[in-house]
Amino acid sequence: MKIIIVGATGTMGMHLTNAFEKEHEIIRVASKGGDIEADITSTESIENMFKQVGTFDALISTAGPTYVGTWKNLTDKEFRKGVEGKMMGQINLVLIGQHYINPKGSFTLITGALTHDPQKNFANASAVNGAVEGFVRAAAIELENGIRINAVSPTVIENSPHYFPYFPGDIPVTMQQLEYGFRKSIFGANTGQVIKPY
Amino acid sequence: MKIIIVGATGTMGMHLTNAFEKEHEIIRVASKGGDIEADITSTESIENMFKQVGTFDALISTAGPTYVGTWKNLTDKEFRKGVEGKMMGQINLVLIGQHYINPKGSFTLITGALTHDPQKNFANASAVNGAVEGFVRAAAIELENGIRINAVSPTVIENSPHYFPYFPGDIPVTMQQLEYGFRKSIFGANTGQVIKPY
Repeated sequence: MKIIIVGATGTMGMHLTNAFEKEHEIIRVASKGGDIEADITSTESIENMFKQVGTFDALISTAGPTYVGTWKNLTDKEFRKGVEGKMMGQINLVLIGQHYINPKGSFTLITGALTHDPQKNFANASAVNGAVEGFVRAAAIELENGIRINAVSPTVIENSPHYFPYFPGDIPVTMQQLEYGFRKSIFGANTGQVIKPY
Repeated sequence: MKIIIVGATGTMGMHLTNAFEKEHEIIRVASKGGDIEADITSTESIENMFKQVGTFDALISTAGPTYVGTWKNLTDKEFRKGVEGKMMGQINLVLIGQHYINPKGSFTLITGALTHDPQKNFANASAVNGAVEGFVRAAAIELENGIRINAVSPTVIENSPHYFPYFPGDIPVTMQQLEYGFRKSIFGANTGQVIKPY
């Protein structure tokens, strides 16, 4: 299977690359580094990335820039980080990528528990996660040719301990649990699901 | 109670104005008409509106422009209608309005069943509804001085029969049910809730 991993140089992307590269052809996409560089906040950059990749079977996105910071500093300006990044970045990967993906291919986007379980400093992520999850359910009934789409929604992840203090009481998702969430989406048959790998 | 109704000249806004104006002071806000004109896609226009209103006790938003149309025409450009309108428009009403609202005041935003129950042609609404609902849950744990925030999430509404063909099998929410959803948010004590008035 030819699998694009967007965010391949990040904590999640590196683990997923290692997990899948033995059995699959992996195209590592990142803002810096990787096999192809792409800026997901630019539709032109996304389009160029797909033109270089050509057809593919699965796209994994772990690319989720959002604004993290105190509520009193949160204005429209800060909010745009998540809107352009984790939200429209991922949505545009699908809206554009659907013209390059093979029949029966799959898109798997990243969201997170903050959608329904907010924590202080993360209102931007709660909102844009909710947007991506709503989009995934809607896209699932629109995509044709057997193309599927799901989101994986972890809590704070094992390999990002610097985030633990922000998520009191959240049991970290292990890297293996996270990988299994993506496996379920890519190699399973469900569509329109928000997969909680815990 | 001094209540701002944003979207006051629309189907929902007119019903809610009639329902609440006997017992409360209503400030009708709309893009055209109303007591004050405001463009919710402009943070400057929102700020000007609040400056004119001064302090208030509750803000109701029924303002939800989104892109409705076939999936094959849906690109980043069309998607922005809902992002700037129903999503950032309503989010900015809260981020800016929190500096004008009285202690123990409330914000009530509009979303819709499409968040979890998609229909063809409405992917933009599913996404931006999800964003507003995620934001509402996060804002509820950040707002101070007893200020509350909820969303009301109806299905297709009784007085918009031109939408019925797009929502096969959905039982329309009556205008009275919708009104009760807003009553629960404004006059009740809950916060961070997505109220389904059916």
